[in-house]
Amino acid sequence: METIVVVAHPRLEDSGTQRFLKEAVSDLNYVVWHELRVNSAGHFDKIAEKNNLRDKDRIIFQFPLYWYSAPALLKQWIDEIFDMTDAAWLQKKELGIVVSLGQPLREYRLGGREGIALSELLSPFKAFAKYLGMTLMPLFIVEQFSYQNEKQHQKLMINYQQFLELPRAFDFDQKQRWFENKLKQKLETCSENKGDLEKILEEFTERHDQLSDLKNEINLIRRKDDYYGEP
Amino acid sequence: METIVVVAHPRLEDSGTQRFLKEAVSDLNYVVWHELRVNSAGHFDKIAEKNNLRDKDRIIFQFPLYWYSAPALLKQWIDEIFDMTDAAWLQKKELGIVVSLGQPLREYRLGGREGIALSELLSPFKAFAKYLGMTLMPLFIVEQFSYQNEKQHQKLMINYQQFLELPRAFDFDQKQRWFENKLKQKLETCSENKGDLEKILEEFTERHDQLSDLKNEINLIRRKDDYYGEP
Repeated sequence: METIVVVAHPRLEDSGTQRFLKEAVSDLNYVVWHELRVNSAGHFDKIAEKNNLRDKDRIIFQFPLYWYSAPALLKQWIDEIFDMTDAAWLQKKELGIVVSLGQPLREYRLGGREGIALSELLSPFKAFAKYLGMTLMPLFIVEQFSYQNEKQHQKLMINYQQFLELPRAFDFDQKQRWFENKLKQKLETCSENKGDLEKILEEFTERHDQLSDLKNEINLIRRKDDYYGEP
Repeated sequence: METIVVVAHPRLEDSGTQRFLKEAVSDLNYVVWHELRVNSAGHFDKIAEKNNLRDKDRIIFQFPLYWYSAPALLKQWIDEIFDMTDAAWLQKKELGIVVSLGQPLREYRLGGREGIALSELLSPFKAFAKYLGMTLMPLFIVEQFSYQNEKQHQKLMINYQQFLELPRAFDFDQKQRWFENKLKQKLETCSENKGDLEKILEEFTERHDQLSDLKNEINLIRRKDDYYGEP
């Protein structure tokens, strides 16, 4: 599966969040990082921009929330390159939104300081995907990146990479396998600490099998419960 | 009351709707028409743009719906001239949205072709107004202007002028008085058909008094009903 990350940030070079996410993408073989920049006339090259998207299965719009919606740069790109009368070529592609917030997510809810849910503020993308026949992925939120600690950053990187690479509704097993593959890749490319990595991989795979067995058992118990329990 | 209409249209010269609304504004003494255009560097003059708004009581954002939100031009203007850390100067001002639709309004509802209400798509402006302490006016919608007939256009012009000039929650009486004033102004400036206009004004004023009497009577009856009727 091929993915393109369309990055719209008015001051990209100042953004620690985008620098971090770019680093996360550099590891991935089937993900293209595409930063939006207007040409000297202040516009986008419609044909070139469309061609960037054609062979992709998943298109990501990635931006910071600016005044409660995407920055003007992304809207300009959308206004200039998409036609309402030429929608067929985008059908069946997936659309993912990666939005970064300067404020805590809890403010975007009933009674919060902003009082309007992020899903409502970003509803134009829902209508956009619907019109073009694209499948909208669950919103990916980067919440106050600069306040996150090292551990949270690591978790973010993994979640983000999985969001870009894994099939849409991925399950526990796919997530585990994804990890194993990443470890194997690391083993192939690295020269130091090979022994340590091998041990981690071995243990991880062993636990994966144990966890899969456990999951199966739970499923069996659950089915029994369903059968004997209340309807 | 001073009003500014901030017009954001990517191809303003091609828009029959905006030409029509501009004509409607040309009659009004306390309404400024302000078309957004970037400078040669592709940006807005922040200080000049802010100064345009300072002495206004009502600010109107006027635009066609483009891909389910405002055109990039308006978003760029917002992103460039407003600061989240410098909001006090806009407090207590009114914010009105005039949005024109190429599609029928009925599509923007549960089960309609678009399936999302206009008020949801435009919710970023609700958050915007809330953050800045502005009072949001009821959305003004221009629906499929080019399909409207002459009579609908006349009605649109009056509703639009009243939206710009009258106090926010205007009542029947204010609406009537607004008409009378417009007729009087016309009488002062025109040279032809003065007699006809005078007759219309006379009849209008007479009916206004009759209608006011009727309204008062209805209110009295209603109050009685409230008193004797069910709680």
